[in-house]
Amino acid sequence: MSKSIYPAILPELSADEFEPLLQAVKDYQLIHGSLLKLVASEEEHSVLARPVGVSIFPTQFPTRHFFRALELQQIFNELYARVASDEAWLEETLHDLIESDQFTNALWGVHQAVKAAGAYERQPLSLGVFRSDYMVHLSDLKSRANIMSKLNSKAERRLELKQVELNTYTVAGGTHGNIVAEMHKHLLRSGVYGKEYREQFALSTIHSYPPENDTVKNIVAGLATANRAYERPTSRSATHTGVLMIVQPNNFNVCDERPIEYGLWDQDVPCYRLIWGSEVLQYTTLGPNKELLFTHPQCVYTPLEISVLYMRAGYEPREYQDKAGVTCRLHLEESRAIKCPNILGHLATFKKVQQRLAEPAQLERFLPRESADAIRVTFMPMYPMDSSEQGLKGREIARNAKEARDYVMKPSLEGGGHNHYGEEIPSALASIPEEQWKSYILMKMIDTPPQEGMLMSPRGGYRGNVVSELGVFGVCMWKKEESSQEVRILENKQAGWSFKTKSTEVNEMSVVKGYGCFDTPCLVDL
Amino acid sequence: MSKSIYPAILPELSADEFEPLLQAVKDYQLIHGSLLKLVASEEEHSVLARPVGVSIFPTQFPTRHFFRALELQQIFNELYARVASDEAWLEETLHDLIESDQFTNALWGVHQAVKAAGAYERQPLSLGVFRSDYMVHLSDLKSRANIMSKLNSKAERRLELKQVELNTYTVAGGTHGNIVAEMHKHLLRSGVYGKEYREQFALSTIHSYPPENDTVKNIVAGLATANRAYERPTSRSATHTGVLMIVQPNNFNVCDERPIEYGLWDQDVPCYRLIWGSEVLQYTTLGPNKELLFTHPQCVYTPLEISVLYMRAGYEPREYQDKAGVTCRLHLEESRAIKCPNILGHLATFKKVQQRLAEPAQLERFLPRESADAIRVTFMPMYPMDSSEQGLKGREIARNAKEARDYVMKPSLEGGGHNHYGEEIPSALASIPEEQWKSYILMKMIDTPPQEGMLMSPRGGYRGNVVSELGVFGVCMWKKEESSQEVRILENKQAGWSFKTKSTEVNEMSVVKGYGCFDTPCLVDL
Repeated sequence: MSKSIYPAILPELSADEFEPLLQAVKDYQLIHGSLLKLVASEEEHSVLARPVGVSIFPTQFPTRHFFRALELQQIFNELYARVASDEAWLEETLHDLIESDQFTNALWGVHQAVKAAGAYERQPLSLGVFRSDYMVHLSDLKSRANIMSKLNSKAERRLELKQVELNTYTVAGGTHGNIVAEMHKHLLRSGVYGKEYREQFALSTIHSYPPENDTVKNIVAGLATANRAYERPTSRSATHTGVLMIVQPNNFNVCDERPIEYGLWDQDVPCYRLIWGSEVLQYTTLGPNKELLFTHPQCVYTPLEISVLYMRAGYEPREYQDKAGVTCRLHLEESRAIKCPNILGHLATFKKVQQRLAEPAQLERFLPRESADAIRVTFMPMYPMDSSEQGLKGREIARNAKEARDYVMKPSLEGGGHNHYGEEIPSALASIPEEQWKSYILMKMIDTPPQEGMLMSPRGGYRGNVVSELGVFGVCMWKKEESSQEVRILENKQAGWSFKTKSTEVNEMSVVKGYGCFDTPCLVDL
Repeated sequence: MSKSIYPAILPELSADEFEPLLQAVKDYQLIHGSLLKLVASEEEHSVLARPVGVSIFPTQFPTRHFFRALELQQIFNELYARVASDEAWLEETLHDLIESDQFTNALWGVHQAVKAAGAYERQPLSLGVFRSDYMVHLSDLKSRANIMSKLNSKAERRLELKQVELNTYTVAGGTHGNIVAEMHKHLLRSGVYGKEYREQFALSTIHSYPPENDTVKNIVAGLATANRAYERPTSRSATHTGVLMIVQPNNFNVCDERPIEYGLWDQDVPCYRLIWGSEVLQYTTLGPNKELLFTHPQCVYTPLEISVLYMRAGYEPREYQDKAGVTCRLHLEESRAIKCPNILGHLATFKKVQQRLAEPAQLERFLPRESADAIRVTFMPMYPMDSSEQGLKGREIARNAKEARDYVMKPSLEGGGHNHYGEEIPSALASIPEEQWKSYILMKMIDTPPQEGMLMSPRGGYRGNVVSELGVFGVCMWKKEESSQEVRILENKQAGWSFKTKSTEVNEMSVVKGYGCFDTPCLVDL
């Protein structure tokens, strides 16, 4: 971990000032739905909720890297739209995983089945709501730090924007990110951060607040665009089209999902929720033209022809363990609805894809040289863990405690978690049968400079070193022409951001576990 | 209790339909701040909340009475502005209470002290946020019901709009009312009420939804208008003016209060909260011109000159029991700030005032004949309980179990609660020392026809007979000219509504106790 390069900006607050500040945070969260639903407490007539973890103050992030990350999103949108349209490349990339990993195998099986059933010709459009996650990285200086101990002199710094991962499936946090950004703005204008912070902020020429953040609105707009692109109902019995959100049962995170549903209704686009698996199978059918029909006494235009499937479930291996899970996915993918995203778009989220894209000449397969160069600089060194030449190099690093220190070993799954960090890698690897090693990738750790932060979450309060992750949202709609196999990008937008901060004492950014806290970048010119 | 005169409109829902409906209600409430904060659970870093009680379906209310109540609000605004400006009439009206009731006595003492200190000349403006509560009343037919049992034939009905009470002080429920009205609209458009209800509603020529309800926005606008009317800071040290909201500590109802604060900030009017009593005295001072200065490290324009005092505390006798309470009120009332409302405006909320206004010729003291006639028809028969001629009549009724059956005996306090109903009145009266009888009034009970309703609150779910109360908000600003003693009404607006429904099995409409549930009127042509 590097020394901090950020100016110290957090004030000392007396108890008299601290208590109203915490009150202001909690009350704002209660009133704006910045909550976790305590699903275990749910009764028919009531349920408990409590504020989701947040950073009390905005956390510093370099201005130029923030805006650079926003700029890059359209390139990443295009890249992943093209990756998700390139079956051959995906198959080659995921080949080992399809063989060795049950989950990947199940998803690939779904792809093959719906391909054979003509799903891609039936619906050449696909929608993506992506999120590219970044941290800032203090490059190359770590090993020299001990000798030189000059880290804070401008000449010695090289701060870079580095990608943690890119998520294409069931991307969450947009709503929470929006609310917390608004909350920090309110707390600042109201003065509750105290005089010292206020004056320092007002006088500072290097700090500023990010521009307005409308992630929810942008996601809603993307889904509404896809609904329009679907055009009129195919079915004779349906009068209207609408969006179906596929969700997990007993979801503690409804506060992140429901605002998108309300936003669609506000645009006169009907939106319904169904629970992954048996509920989907119970209430939807495929019409003669494979149109997906939602029939339910509580659907106002029943049957509603589903134009867009907005996936917020189906990303966990356990969701495919019983037959209803696989059947549900097949049923949805086979339909004429536009998927957000389709199964190939889902497969593009695997870390193996990220690792392969970092290999020489891969980006150029999908992007013009200039775009490829622009995003390549955000990649950390990555290795496969298979038996290729690079894979053997990866295995060598992973087995060597000293070399492994700078790396993280990640299973090629969606989302965070299940990672092994630094010195624990060799023993973790030893406990995994060698034939499964190829399901992992090795990535050089982003060495992000810490700074002081103040967090509050259901776990408690925390003041100490923190690190942050910036997530940039993108909305993208693309069409794969049946005849030419050409990929046309029909919609390509940067769609806002979320920002999460955690204590340096934990590795996980999990919001559910109370480690990751929603935050706003306080932009700093470094 | 009358028989229902309302068409039966609630559907039978299967468990399959009921569960998603309840989910939709609870989720909407979590996301929109329709919550009660569980203050006992509060820790520094977190707090629990749960949905406030709501009616699952909108509850029927006669269309013409709904719009009539909205129309009458400007007359009530003017009436109470004039009552609050008529010290002599208030003193005469409250004379007995001032003598016998400690609380009234304390408030009157504050009035006298600040009058002597020149407070009313210093600040001739006053603001009111009022709420007039109504129920519909099936008049005169009750005694005939048994004989005729023809209640549902049109000829036998006489439905009237009757006032329950008028609140001038710490009027709550505006935010909750807004949210629940929006929620019901969303539930209806989404179809979650089921096919039977939807079709019936769509086909009905007699049902409609009330127009948009912007209570929060209107209250914010009223406070912002008063802030502008205050004009520039009097103090040399202050650069800005702003609103101070005086609140109770540990308030479970922050979700009703805070949105008004946020709304003011959105209009660039600073708004701060201070807790009644010692916190007010700690953080505010009076300048040489009695300008109220708020000085606090967490106030962004410190010292902020307070233009408007928005009172959401100071209405309970216990708040005046220690010295800080009375001192706090004196301090605030003495200041140059515009009070919302001032102490005379507060005294106007006493039920004794309502009863006296119902006496012959009283309304004409304040209003033109036409206006007086328009509102007089909303009054139920009321009696004082003092030793006047009318008071003796009141006492006679109260002591007679049979006659008392149609009455409610109310202590002359702000807000609901502590009432005695019907047959329990004689024994309640017997337990009260006779010298305190004059602190009560007797009001004929509004005989409101019940209907079937479905409620959910922290207490549980309920399906059965319910009755509703419509509250119409008003915002009013008036000026009492020093020279002419003339009262000029500067702002007079109907400001939205709230609607509450409870089981007929309980008398209290208390939201905190989980009896009263926020609701929307489903307007019906009866």
